[in-house]
Amino acid sequence: MSLDGAYDEGNPFALILAGKIPSAKLYEDEHTYAFLDIMPQSKGHSLVISKWSKARNLLEMEDDALAQVMATAKKVAIALRQALNPDGIHIAQFNGSAAGQTVFHLHVHIVPRWEGGPVGFSTHGQGGMADAEELRALAESVRAFL
Amino acid sequence: MSLDGAYDEGNPFALILAGKIPSAKLYEDEHTYAFLDIMPQSKGHSLVISKWSKARNLLEMEDDALAQVMATAKKVAIALRQALNPDGIHIAQFNGSAAGQTVFHLHVHIVPRWEGGPVGFSTHGQGGMADAEELRALAESVRAFL
Repeated sequence: MSLDGAYDEGNPFALILAGKIPSAKLYEDEHTYAFLDIMPQSKGHSLVISKWSKARNLLEMEDDALAQVMATAKKVAIALRQALNPDGIHIAQFNGSAAGQTVFHLHVHIVPRWEGGPVGFSTHGQGGMADAEELRALAESVRAFL
Repeated sequence: MSLDGAYDEGNPFALILAGKIPSAKLYEDEHTYAFLDIMPQSKGHSLVISKWSKARNLLEMEDDALAQVMATAKKVAIALRQALNPDGIHIAQFNGSAAGQTVFHLHVHIVPRWEGGPVGFSTHGQGGMADAEELRALAESVRAFL
């Protein structure tokens, strides 16, 4: 099986859901949680995760958990478009480290794109770690549309 | 609104669904259709589309159509893993030409990845147009797991 090790209850996203580490929250409902990536590929780079599924990846994901995560990803994409007016939005989901996965709790990336800006994924975002205060302010401006 | 023009009934995926152009079919159910990309980013690069939604992109997609497409993407990812044994699987979905979208009928990319192989998306696949006969044979080997 592999695709890189068992589900780790101490993974960063499990810790965010448990309230043990902070996150710049965008949206939450009964089943899903959305927040800003701390190593953004572009301004507004967001992540959506399931609050209950222990799936590491798509291949293991329950169909209902997957539908819930994608419905929230759509909501967040619409809000990012309204808040930031990107020219495009790139959705990505990585399964296994060979595909670029670094946290083994299924997550969907929502990456706003602008004409002339970067299009690929770089290993540690486009500029390393984002400033926490800037992320909080950005999250607030996106939450206004959610 | 934009994200590049209205839905075009003559787009390549609409024509595939109408049987007007051929495709290397992997799977089909009441709501979705899966086939091999003719400009593959890697061996087994597959696409999943809705048979009924006219959504160009995620922002317009009906929640049920989205859930159906993702459930099929999961099935195809599992089958690709069994058929081709990739180390990882990259899921991508592009919204707007600025994000790399070229066909404006929502589609989910399922791209097998191998350690040491390419990880990004190049504009016309990794090697241009695939050989039609090879795609047919590859589709048959993946269909054995679907």
